[in-house]
Amino acid sequence: MQIVHYVEELRGIISEAKKQGKSIGFVPTMGYLHEGHLSLARRARGENGLVVMSIFVNPLQFGVNEDYEDYPRDLSRDAPMAEAAGVDVLFCPGVADMYPRGYATFVEVEEITAVLCGASRPGHFRGVTTVVAKLFGLVQPDRAYFGQKDAQQLRVIEKMVEDLNMPVEIVPCPTVRELDGLAMSSRNAYLSPREREAALVLNRSLRRAEEAIRAGERDANRIREQVAAMIREEPLAEIDYVSVNDGVTLREIERIGDRVMVALAVRIGMTRLIDNLQMNLGGEG
Amino acid sequence: MQIVHYVEELRGIISEAKKQGKSIGFVPTMGYLHEGHLSLARRARGENGLVVMSIFVNPLQFGVNEDYEDYPRDLSRDAPMAEAAGVDVLFCPGVADMYPRGYATFVEVEEITAVLCGASRPGHFRGVTTVVAKLFGLVQPDRAYFGQKDAQQLRVIEKMVEDLNMPVEIVPCPTVRELDGLAMSSRNAYLSPREREAALVLNRSLRRAEEAIRAGERDANRIREQVAAMIREEPLAEIDYVSVNDGVTLREIERIGDRVMVALAVRIGMTRLIDNLQMNLGGEG
Repeated sequence: MQIVHYVEELRGIISEAKKQGKSIGFVPTMGYLHEGHLSLARRARGENGLVVMSIFVNPLQFGVNEDYEDYPRDLSRDAPMAEAAGVDVLFCPGVADMYPRGYATFVEVEEITAVLCGASRPGHFRGVTTVVAKLFGLVQPDRAYFGQKDAQQLRVIEKMVEDLNMPVEIVPCPTVRELDGLAMSSRNAYLSPREREAALVLNRSLRRAEEAIRAGERDANRIREQVAAMIREEPLAEIDYVSVNDGVTLREIERIGDRVMVALAVRIGMTRLIDNLQMNLGGEG
Repeated sequence: MQIVHYVEELRGIISEAKKQGKSIGFVPTMGYLHEGHLSLARRARGENGLVVMSIFVNPLQFGVNEDYEDYPRDLSRDAPMAEAAGVDVLFCPGVADMYPRGYATFVEVEEITAVLCGASRPGHFRGVTTVVAKLFGLVQPDRAYFGQKDAQQLRVIEKMVEDLNMPVEIVPCPTVRELDGLAMSSRNAYLSPREREAALVLNRSLRRAEEAIRAGERDANRIREQVAAMIREEPLAEIDYVSVNDGVTLREIERIGDRVMVALAVRIGMTRLIDNLQMNLGGEG
């Protein structure tokens, strides 16, 4: 595995791979890898000639009072994990190489970025789409792999790719969970043991919603209320949002139709965690 | 030459060309071709395996009171001209194919879009960068050709490509002029014979500025005043801006250094025309 720190070096590698006709699979990350990231890399390995993973904690997608400074960074821990998962090129650029002095170009997806995490984190998705557009320009991937845990991010990226006619296939991959159900996230490292226990309420309330919907509940408000009530029972948890939306436009719904997303953002102590449930009920409901 | 009306059809052609290892040269236009456009196509022909020209009058880059509806369109006139200039694929998409219902993604270059034409045409460059990003996504060109007549547009596109790490080389090409010096523009078709005569004041004032700078004038305000005074002598002309800027950031300068751009936007009757002069004085001044 090659570790590449500079944009120009990466360009050379990509250009060579293109010349050789290799397909390129790309896994963008902010590092501090966990099994979720590695599942993306393994899938990319199976489907492409060259697998590129980026590790870049993107300052543009953090708000002023968010955890940009504290976000965990450990390349010596991440590199062997990436290599074992089949990554060929680990791209770890510096901030000054990605956003040099005078940087002035931004990519913005409107509408679906105004709700959910976009409502609580103004500018967040503009940072995400800008850096992903840059990384796509650099890596020129045939396929890019994103986890469904960040469901809104995935929809926003899909929308950007569709709208800007970007020549890349976005491959959504299932959320990977700890044995007890907690969705894997680099931010789980922030949790104290008590908070780690409290964080289980996200998955637990989603499983309760899933059961209710499977049992025939179609009133979205009843689902919202059940989920919110369960989270409120956990003293360390504070709800940012509980959304029952259509899973595509991410607009809140009243009645659950063929497709539904239940999405949560919850603060556990100082740590903001997200999780979601997506169901296709076509033919069932 | 193939004439292609649909995004999906173009995708197939590009994908095939890429498989064959052909380099792709791209000339984006709004049609109503003139010798300026054709010079770009001929240059692209000489440097690439496949030459794609687009003709798309992009609604996103027109303001509400601008000439989107009136902009001249004539594919039966343009197609043979494009073919004779060496174009292989003429891409003429419809608005609904480029901006389908629910379209929501925009590319924006800040700072250098706030001055000159950006100041008089709010949203114009956002429309330009968005459509060019889309066309680059579709055509995946190795090289894209732009005329220096639209000097700010060229700088904005170069900035977008640099900032977003787009894998395309931007090739600036010299302004092509009529025998009497008027810069070629599709909008020249709007001019009455008297206006056509009056429009010569743009080039005449730029040539005067060039002479003055060559003769050693380094006071940018004197140049601005001389150019503006000459334009004001023409009764049909109304100045939008006279800029003496550094040619890179497009900021107004006081003293002329190694590099200078004199840029004009002038209304001749109802028709807004632009022109510019770019000089490299390194070693001279």
